Amino acid sequence: MGALHEGHLELVKKAREECDAVVVSIFVNPAQFAPHEDLDQYPRTLETDYASLVDSKSCSAILLPKVSEMYPSGITLDRTQQRGAFVEVVGLSHQMEGIPRPHFFRGVATVVAKLFNIVQPDRAYFGQKDAQQCVVLRAMIRDLLLPITMRAIPTRRESDGLALSSRNRYLTPEMRNVATLLYKAISAAKATIVSDTVHDREEILKPAYAIINQVAEDVKAQGLGFEVKLDYLSLVDVETLTELQVLGKGQAAILSGAVYVGGTRLIDNMLINTDEL
Amino acid sequence: MGALHEGHLELVKKAREECDAVVVSIFVNPAQFAPHEDLDQYPRTLETDYASLVDSKSCSAILLPKVSEMYPSGITLDRTQQRGAFVEVVGLSHQMEGIPRPHFFRGVATVVAKLFNIVQPDRAYFGQKDAQQCVVLRAMIRDLLLPITMRAIPTRRESDGLALSSRNRYLTPEMRNVATLLYKAISAAKATIVSDTVHDREEILKPAYAIINQVAEDVKAQGLGFEVKLDYLSLVDVETLTELQVLGKGQAAILSGAVYVGGTRLIDNMLINTDEL
Repeated sequence: MGALHEGHLELVKKAREECDAVVVSIFVNPAQFAPHEDLDQYPRTLETDYASLVDSKSCSAILLPKVSEMYPSGITLDRTQQRGAFVEVVGLSHQMEGIPRPHFFRGVATVVAKLFNIVQPDRAYFGQKDAQQCVVLRAMIRDLLLPITMRAIPTRRESDGLALSSRNRYLTPEMRNVATLLYKAISAAKATIVSDTVHDREEILKPAYAIINQVAEDVKAQGLGFEVKLDYLSLVDVETLTELQVLGKGQAAILSGAVYVGGTRLIDNMLINTDEL
Repeated sequence: MGALHEGHLELVKKAREECDAVVVSIFVNPAQFAPHEDLDQYPRTLETDYASLVDSKSCSAILLPKVSEMYPSGITLDRTQQRGAFVEVVGLSHQMEGIPRPHFFRGVATVVAKLFNIVQPDRAYFGQKDAQQCVVLRAMIRDLLLPITMRAIPTRRESDGLALSSRNRYLTPEMRNVATLLYKAISAAKATIVSDTVHDREEILKPAYAIINQVAEDVKAQGLGFEVKLDYLSLVDVETLTELQVLGKGQAAILSGAVYVGGTRLIDNMLINTDEL
């Protein structure tokens, strides 16, 4: 979707290491926004995106399609009025990030299927930061029998652990100071897990909730003029994305969450018992 | 889906004329059947299908996938329990044949998308007899930006006009005698249309209803031991598949219908103001 940062460029460089040619698509996809969401406000920074890609010396071509080219039957954000072909990954799209955004992964799967059909890549690179997106797209590739190998590249972080995100630009310096809370919370949860042992969900997530509550209280006590609020913490099986009450021995899982820092919603995740999504 | 007849072989021959290599898929697709439908009873005639394809000297390869290969996430007919990637062509799947079979075109679009991804054809051949299927798949190809040219091949008919169908084998000689009623009805409706004139739906369909009612009465009067019953007659715009109350000047449309002859449901269609779907 553009608004490129070092995390995106990492994908481009990784792709260049592993492939003969790299195509980068930049397309703000209407189908993954609901009518009340920020399609019009989503950052569009084509000139600096272009310069970064040229600087990277890793990009063979940039694909900049028009909305009318990507949606030949047209596209409206009102789902009841939509027409045309859509791809849905049933069973992996309704939970986690799909709870507040039930339309989201249908929009993502649909646009990625179209981009795949245009570019016909041998490999496709996505960022692990959008963990559920990686799981949804890997399932789509497998189920639709697309001849594509998917690579999920680890999240690029600032030196204090904050995951890079196009939305970090919305943080004031005071917000930026506390924005690491989600990284710290998920790290603390992950630290409770000793390999080859069964763990209860509560035991894993307890230190994460404690950190987020503490930061939220500190921010309130200091009267910084903004709020910190937990949206959710999640511990799911990596294949089914079902919430786990118990993490089995060696069970591959995703620890993830979302927090609001002021008006900005940040997400992050870490993997348990697996290296790549 | 196999159970090949001359209509299918016509597609294979047409493909061979226009292409260097022809792949024929034979796969009875669970996703297009509802739990109460005839998935288990659907005719499977692989040996004779194979012999026909060899005889045709037009087929380069036959694709015979297993259900587990086509549905890596599994497939159950109970839609509420399904998981995995599905393709839906919204706006063209709920009307006509989609009224009694709301799951049908989602199943068709999904399996055809998968077959396309396996074979990666330059051209794909479908029979015009399944008119709505042609419109749905043409929209899917366009919307998903698949690099495939679709060809819809005119319906192959017996000398008396009956459209070839795998289901014709279920007709007794008495049923076969009257089974042309739908062809005759649609022909009579089409004959009312004079090019470059506006027509009312009622005026077009009147002779078709008359023919079907007459045959149904005759069959009843003769006490043949089976019934003839109209399911529906339809006049739709060729792009939107919306029922037309008025056919505009030169407007491309589909005249179609379904009838029951005994327990066998037959469909047929003709095109108005256009040559290919």
